[in-house]
Amino acid sequence: MSEVREKASKAQAVVPQLNRLSTEQKNNALLVMADALIAQADSIIAANADDLERGRQQGTPESMLDRLALNKERIAGIAEGLRQIVELQDPVGEVLETFTRPNGLHVEKLRVPIGLIGIIYEARPNVTVDAAGLCLKTGNAVLLRGGSSALSSNRKIVEVLHQALATTDMPADALQLVEDADRSSVDEMLKLNGLLDVIIPRGGASLIRNVVANATVPVIETGAGICHTYVDETADPVMAAEIAVNAKAQRPSVCNSMETLLLHAVYAEEHLPTLAEQLREANVLLKGCDTVRRLVPSALPVTEEDYATEYNDYILNIRVVQNLDEAMEHIARYGTKHSECIVTKDTSNAERFLHDIDAAAVYHNASTRFTDGFEFGYGAEIGISTQKLHARGPMGLPALTSTKYRITGNGQIRQ
Amino acid sequence: MSEVREKASKAQAVVPQLNRLSTEQKNNALLVMADALIAQADSIIAANADDLERGRQQGTPESMLDRLALNKERIAGIAEGLRQIVELQDPVGEVLETFTRPNGLHVEKLRVPIGLIGIIYEARPNVTVDAAGLCLKTGNAVLLRGGSSALSSNRKIVEVLHQALATTDMPADALQLVEDADRSSVDEMLKLNGLLDVIIPRGGASLIRNVVANATVPVIETGAGICHTYVDETADPVMAAEIAVNAKAQRPSVCNSMETLLLHAVYAEEHLPTLAEQLREANVLLKGCDTVRRLVPSALPVTEEDYATEYNDYILNIRVVQNLDEAMEHIARYGTKHSECIVTKDTSNAERFLHDIDAAAVYHNASTRFTDGFEFGYGAEIGISTQKLHARGPMGLPALTSTKYRITGNGQIRQ
Repeated sequence: MSEVREKASKAQAVVPQLNRLSTEQKNNALLVMADALIAQADSIIAANADDLERGRQQGTPESMLDRLALNKERIAGIAEGLRQIVELQDPVGEVLETFTRPNGLHVEKLRVPIGLIGIIYEARPNVTVDAAGLCLKTGNAVLLRGGSSALSSNRKIVEVLHQALATTDMPADALQLVEDADRSSVDEMLKLNGLLDVIIPRGGASLIRNVVANATVPVIETGAGICHTYVDETADPVMAAEIAVNAKAQRPSVCNSMETLLLHAVYAEEHLPTLAEQLREANVLLKGCDTVRRLVPSALPVTEEDYATEYNDYILNIRVVQNLDEAMEHIARYGTKHSECIVTKDTSNAERFLHDIDAAAVYHNASTRFTDGFEFGYGAEIGISTQKLHARGPMGLPALTSTKYRITGNGQIRQ
Repeated sequence: MSEVREKASKAQAVVPQLNRLSTEQKNNALLVMADALIAQADSIIAANADDLERGRQQGTPESMLDRLALNKERIAGIAEGLRQIVELQDPVGEVLETFTRPNGLHVEKLRVPIGLIGIIYEARPNVTVDAAGLCLKTGNAVLLRGGSSALSSNRKIVEVLHQALATTDMPADALQLVEDADRSSVDEMLKLNGLLDVIIPRGGASLIRNVVANATVPVIETGAGICHTYVDETADPVMAAEIAVNAKAQRPSVCNSMETLLLHAVYAEEHLPTLAEQLREANVLLKGCDTVRRLVPSALPVTEEDYATEYNDYILNIRVVQNLDEAMEHIARYGTKHSECIVTKDTSNAERFLHDIDAAAVYHNASTRFTDGFEFGYGAEIGISTQKLHARGPMGLPALTSTKYRITGNGQIRQ
């Protein structure tokens, strides 16, 4: 039996046990896990040093090595993340509907764990702990397949967590790490119907594309964000500039940051030069359509491909449009249905935008950077869903549950 | 451009328009559709006659031809189905959550249409109308791909519905029928990411398997039901017999009927002979384990394969088990997580069964035949989901919606 199938089988075998754990038992396990990470920080840092060394030898860029690196402070932060998950309400067992039918059947619809969740992700070792914490808190088993560049770190972290779980009521087998660094282990996970209940990819566009194209197990698609801000004719220029700079430059590497700014022609003529200056001060490289380049001669020309690119960087496309319709057409064509914003004083334009734009989150007069579990008050999230089924937008703990109907009767039969 | 892609594009093009229709406009369209079916019944029956004639020439069994056949009464029933959908509450626009964050951002989570739904189904032409009605009521466009054996009927029905829609506010392009009877048109639908938002297969096990194995578009899996009834030591024998006969024989062809009856050994010794007699009176052919065959010598031997078969017929497996655990292990091994029942007076055994069995619907002292949208009071359903994501169990109108966050602010930016 392959490593993937063996570990998935072990994890699936404890699913019924997990489903019987109380919230208290699950929370206790997470707290013990957090303590163990702190207590074993030195050995985790030593394992991480192996990954960093291998990365350096392979010429990995410094920015990637920084994302991979662990130290005491970062491990404390990861442990604190687990403690925050403990504070979140456990959705399992929540009764969503309850009714009695005329024939006396009593029906309850309640939240249950999904079962075994597969997570496929890239370098950051903190995902190993975050994903484990969120899945275990909701009574799910989890099969993790992290990037090979973090394998030593992930292996040590899971070893530490397994030792910790052995002292709790939570079966250690609920947490499994695929160590096979070969691409074939991912391919096998994608087809593990009957063992894996869902796969959640976390990472760049190519990782997600591969999972969506090849999985036969149900997938929750996360992440890709080509987000727009449309500044309408009547926008408050101070507000519009603050929102645009924030949406682009507050943290460009994340999915809810803005990639393209759409400006109403009248607004652009009056305010673009000042706005461009503010964006440049925030270190943003500007690309623009012809009108933009007339108003801001230093802007580079923008291409169709640019409009379809998630930069995740200090680069911004700016396009001037004639009206709201043209802005909405642009968004429908290039957007990834993640987060879209209109800045306007015109409530009827705002209403049209909020209603007609098809995206997980639509904003009026606020930065798209708020599409985030913590910002919505949901707490830690497993990702931001950009698909329309099961969960859309920031996925809190309820997104990691399924439902079940419990029906009790006294001998009812169907006529 | 292929027929599938062309029709999907046409349907996707009217998605924004559909999303702007009021409940009244959508209901009016459904009523006009219902009237048109009645008014054009003769031409639909004539088209159906072509399908029946072709089926006879190809040697299609009478039971299949009966499922395919339309007459005035059946068409009236189909039109009545549309009118019943009109009576159902429109979930679109329903606000699921609303809250204001400390920074003043106002967040609403509301139900929106999914977009374009693909339905792949087999012979019955009533599905053409049902599926169209449910999708259009929820503001979705729909791409239908029915079985080739009903192609003339489906083509005429859609022609009639298109003429009807042309007189309403609902764009006729919202309803599309794939007429290409070649298998390749199904294959193309399964990979139509970016145009199709979801595919729902409705039909037999092999149709569903093909869709699940090959689709890259998200799928909602429906249908397959290997359902069990476990009769515990303390079951009321009259109630147990009534439930068992009902679950098996009231309508064996449907997914929520029972395929295997599990009996506690003590119960079996005392009550199986009588129960077997009642099942035989209901025309049920019995297969059993060795203990069953000792108590009911006429029963045929049961095989592993039988336990894994959805008969959809007057055939029943009976197995004697030593206790609740053995029954639950059998269900975990052979069940399809659809509907499972325990008959018992022992509330602690009932509680264990209801909690631990992983299925869309779990029953205590009632027939599994109740897993049905109408029986739950939800009304018409697009199918019964046997997967764990998005929707599980009978899928009413809310299962045909997605959600969207609407956030309004006054210039909030992220710190």
